[in-house]
Amino acid sequence: MRYTFLGPSGTFTETALLAVPGADQAQREPAPSVPAALKLVRSGQADAAMVPIENSVEGGVTATLDAIAQTPQGQAPLRIIREVLVPISFVLVAKPGTRLQDIQTISTHTHAWAQVRQWAAATLPTVNYLPGSSTAGAALGLLQENPGYQAAICSPALAQNHPELEVLAQNIGDKKQAVTRFILVTRDLPTPAPTGQDKTTLVLPLPQDRPGALLEILQQFATRGINLSRIESRPTGAALGSYFFSIDIDGHLQDARVQDALRGLHRVSPGLLYLGSYPRLTGGQTQLDPIHQDPAFQAADFWVQGLLG
Amino acid sequence: MRYTFLGPSGTFTETALLAVPGADQAQREPAPSVPAALKLVRSGQADAAMVPIENSVEGGVTATLDAIAQTPQGQAPLRIIREVLVPISFVLVAKPGTRLQDIQTISTHTHAWAQVRQWAAATLPTVNYLPGSSTAGAALGLLQENPGYQAAICSPALAQNHPELEVLAQNIGDKKQAVTRFILVTRDLPTPAPTGQDKTTLVLPLPQDRPGALLEILQQFATRGINLSRIESRPTGAALGSYFFSIDIDGHLQDARVQDALRGLHRVSPGLLYLGSYPRLTGGQTQLDPIHQDPAFQAADFWVQGLLG
Amino acid sequence: MRYTFLGPSGTFTETALLAVPGADQAQREPAPSVPAALKLVRSGQADAAMVPIENSVEGGVTATLDAIAQTPQGQAPLRIIREVLVPISFVLVAKPGTRLQDIQTISTHTHAWAQVRQWAAATLPTVNYLPGSSTAGAALGLLQENPGYQAAICSPALAQNHPELEVLAQNIGDKKQAVTRFILVTRDLPTPAPTGQDKTTLVLPLPQDRPGALLEILQQFATRGINLSRIESRPTGAALGSYFFSIDIDGHLQDARVQDALRGLHRVSPGLLYLGSYPRLTGGQTQLDPIHQDPAFQAADFWVQGLLG
Amino acid sequence: MRYTFLGPSGTFTETALLAVPGADQAQREPAPSVPAALKLVRSGQADAAMVPIENSVEGGVTATLDAIAQTPQGQAPLRIIREVLVPISFVLVAKPGTRLQDIQTISTHTHAWAQVRQWAAATLPTVNYLPGSSTAGAALGLLQENPGYQAAICSPALAQNHPELEVLAQNIGDKKQAVTRFILVTRDLPTPAPTGQDKTTLVLPLPQDRPGALLEILQQFATRGINLSRIESRPTGAALGSYFFSIDIDGHLQDARVQDALRGLHRVSPGLLYLGSYPRLTGGQTQLDPIHQDPAFQAADFWVQGLLG
Repeated sequence: MRYTFLGPSGTFTETALLAVPGADQAQREPAPSVPAALKLVRSGQADAAMVPIENSVEGGVTATLDAIAQTPQGQAPLRIIREVLVPISFVLVAKPGTRLQDIQTISTHTHAWAQVRQWAAATLPTVNYLPGSSTAGAALGLLQENPGYQAAICSPALAQNHPELEVLAQNIGDKKQAVTRFILVTRDLPTPAPTGQDKTTLVLPLPQDRPGALLEILQQFATRGINLSRIESRPTGAALGSYFFSIDIDGHLQDARVQDALRGLHRVSPGLLYLGSYPRLTGGQTQLDPIHQDPAFQAADFWVQGLLG
Repeated sequence: MRYTFLGPSGTFTETALLAVPGADQAQREPAPSVPAALKLVRSGQADAAMVPIENSVEGGVTATLDAIAQTPQGQAPLRIIREVLVPISFVLVAKPGTRLQDIQTISTHTHAWAQVRQWAAATLPTVNYLPGSSTAGAALGLLQENPGYQAAICSPALAQNHPELEVLAQNIGDKKQAVTRFILVTRDLPTPAPTGQDKTTLVLPLPQDRPGALLEILQQFATRGINLSRIESRPTGAALGSYFFSIDIDGHLQDARVQDALRGLHRVSPGLLYLGSYPRLTGGQTQLDPIHQDPAFQAADFWVQGLLG
Repeated sequence: MRYTFLGPSGTFTETALLAVPGADQAQREPAPSVPAALKLVRSGQADAAMVPIENSVEGGVTATLDAIAQTPQGQAPLRIIREVLVPISFVLVAKPGTRLQDIQTISTHTHAWAQVRQWAAATLPTVNYLPGSSTAGAALGLLQENPGYQAAICSPALAQNHPELEVLAQNIGDKKQAVTRFILVTRDLPTPAPTGQDKTTLVLPLPQDRPGALLEILQQFATRGINLSRIESRPTGAALGSYFFSIDIDGHLQDARVQDALRGLHRVSPGLLYLGSYPRLTGGQTQLDPIHQDPAFQAADFWVQGLLG
Repeated sequence: MRYTFLGPSGTFTETALLAVPGADQAQREPAPSVPAALKLVRSGQADAAMVPIENSVEGGVTATLDAIAQTPQGQAPLRIIREVLVPISFVLVAKPGTRLQDIQTISTHTHAWAQVRQWAAATLPTVNYLPGSSTAGAALGLLQENPGYQAAICSPALAQNHPELEVLAQNIGDKKQAVTRFILVTRDLPTPAPTGQDKTTLVLPLPQDRPGALLEILQQFATRGINLSRIESRPTGAALGSYFFSIDIDGHLQDARVQDALRGLHRVSPGLLYLGSYPRLTGGQTQLDPIHQDPAFQAADFWVQGLLG
């Protein structure tokens, strides 16, 4: 297997990738952006990409949500085959000998900055912020000449691998329970078999000419007893008020209720995308009313087939 | 074809039967009650039965709704293959020479009495009412010895066929637009082909253990854009509050939206009965949103089949 | 108190009336029909009327449902203040000395006949049925000259009060658990105070020009967590397909959720009628989600009032 | 009036502010971030703040959505009183004499970069991107010593005001119809009077313990005929799967249907925030079914009040 991931090395995304069995022995190529990582998969230069999709503090990772929602003309759609949860904590690093009072400017990725803002306001009230392209990039930039900032915020893993950086403060995230969810994305492959605790990810454009379409969409799930574990809106880019929804539901493509809901959704929103069914790490066993279980769907189908003769 | 109908001869039901092409040349055997007529069909002694199902004044004909909802063990279910609408008007008949002021008691079927009550209260305020087993039976009873009443209320057709009865008043129904709907019932046969203006009749027991089941049932129709043209509740007889619903919907068993709704309904209420799809006489062409038409269902099915590989 | 009831004496309705505290000492005048009984209340000649509304075998008592749904111009609307449940059992009576094999014709009320039909078919397969205006009327008719039938079906209570009739068979109802529900109806009075186990009866015309109006009506209940314990459709008489619904809900007019639902229902169906809130005898304590309880409505109202300033 | 806005001068936000009548003559203080701008309003140091809320390409401006959704303990909530739409177009600027082939690195705000990415890939395939804190900041940074990049992407307005920068390319946005929506935010004031074309902005936390809460929320709108023109999910930060929704609806706090919906929503999600009713610039006159107009609500209220006596 050849893996790619949102780089550089030392980001939380690499931590997520290393949690995949066998990935530590496999080829792992960092990509400069989420679209770039997915492009490597689409073109066949990588077999799978690990990218962040949702942060408990900052929300959906819009670059991922948008890049995965669009299949360029003539290319195979992508499939999610696994999710990984990584607890997020941050450290403040600087070149050895730097004191807190020496810091005028801090650099890090904007998502990371958003998660330490309260700590920064309390600890270094007058500090300036310089956006960085990644947490690792900002930290390693300190080792270059004239970086334009005196400290960076990055993952504890990166600091550990780089003893040439000194940790000035640790566990500085404003929310101590912060978690980021990552997904492993491949080209179109057979969907992993159901485990009984699965989720399915969908992209649902909201038809512009149907007021109430979102209600119709939710009713398609409700009439099949399907629970939504995530719903996020994103603009399609076509116009203000033109959205698609990125949705995770409990259940697997092999479940009759999921297939039935997909059929109903396709009528309401024919441009929907199926992005994969895969084991979910949270939420426990799905509790289902018997009327939403496979035997009820099979009995119903058998009955209607009998009527049709 | 051997027909039976809710007799005796001269009732509105016979008028409805005669509206069926060819029925005037066919064998037509009156039955003493709706259950008796349906039993003749079930046993094969008749090919089809004409029975009333709905009156615009008195509502659902409960004997029909109940009899048709129950298939005795081991017998084939019944199928409705046609509906007939008959405008209802009433005449008051008596033996020749009777004057209005001679009338102390009137007999007729209770449904007919319910439809002339205001006329009777205005014209003959002190008259008594004696229930009769049918309008025709009450009228012909006048020709027997000591009938116990002096006048009867029946159809104009019966009065016309029996010149030995004198019409004392005509068009005496309280609602001038009264109509009764009749259905032609057979054993299980291939459903008539769709005409584009069809209805489908269903019997839906309301699951006792699902509060909100009626809402769930209506949503199964709504999510497929299916219009209900009739809904009537009937007790199952098991307990107070135990109901089934007799429902007419616009559409035909061959329509994808109807099949899909039947599958959904079967999950909510597995004991439902399909009583037939047949041309409807009212309501005009069905107007359907494209998302509820056959091509949308086929496209959805094709898409899900593709995902399943 | 001056009571009236659907007579004659000896019917199940009188049994229901006698279950009302004090009714055994009060004036009790039988009325010949449900509309007649309600008219006595409307005109002030009686204070309250006991009438049947629902039979566990035969369903809604249509005469009551229809009569109570219409307030004649210029008259006060009626109010239900109590319900009474009476277990129904039937006996076969005849003049002393009659044997089963002597019986060619049986008379009783059609509702009663419907409830003993299987027994009759098994015990007296060739017997004829003659409709009677009430069970008591049919039984007492046997004591008159030439009644035209040899036996009648009536309540055990009537047989007990009339030793001149012999009971040939008892407990002959096809469903042994049959129950009839009766209601006590008055003119417009202050609604009885809530007991915590109340029901409210409504009459809801289904707007003809709103396809999906029944779904809208049910959603008005659902969004307030209101359970429906009875729903029956009745024709308005205006045309085929023109209905009103007679509905019982759990809850009392004093409950915030009921008031809120009534407001919503009035918008969808402005002709709805409130027929009263009164203690219910079945269903136990209402289980309510906190979001549907009075404090949640009060907090919501307080919040919106605050916004309005 | 003292205004603040998301600075620095020359951003699209200042263009939006200048569209407010009288703002060109008023005090206009730039703020370094959206939270900072809102804080100036909360503390009374500014009367109103102009901030971006939604971009047709990049979606909701999360900093604004999050900052406006939280009222710090003891401070008055904010109110939106106006929206402004600004068409977005971009120019590439550099120091005079720079040629396209000289550009190795471009800086701009990440939102702007996201909107010119296709143009950049086609025109300067090997260029590097350096995040900037704003479009104006990146452009003006070119005038400082050793900025670390050779070109910036900013608004045409800024380029026009700074002739010391040369425009190398204009109208380079990937979507030519891009629009950003800005809102003018004040402290708690009387809501502007209805105009007949208004919108109301709400913040609705999704109760964690109510699966199906989003469906319940949408039904609260649907049963009052209220159209949603925007719905965006944001994480509360508490945990993965803990969301709030930022919602715009058609209608004004003075409309009976809006008040009624707010009451219903408060029961489902008691932590909801009302952020203001104000004229909307898109969507035309609201088309309302009579059952959702003020007179229907007033008639319903009058009727229920009458029942309560």
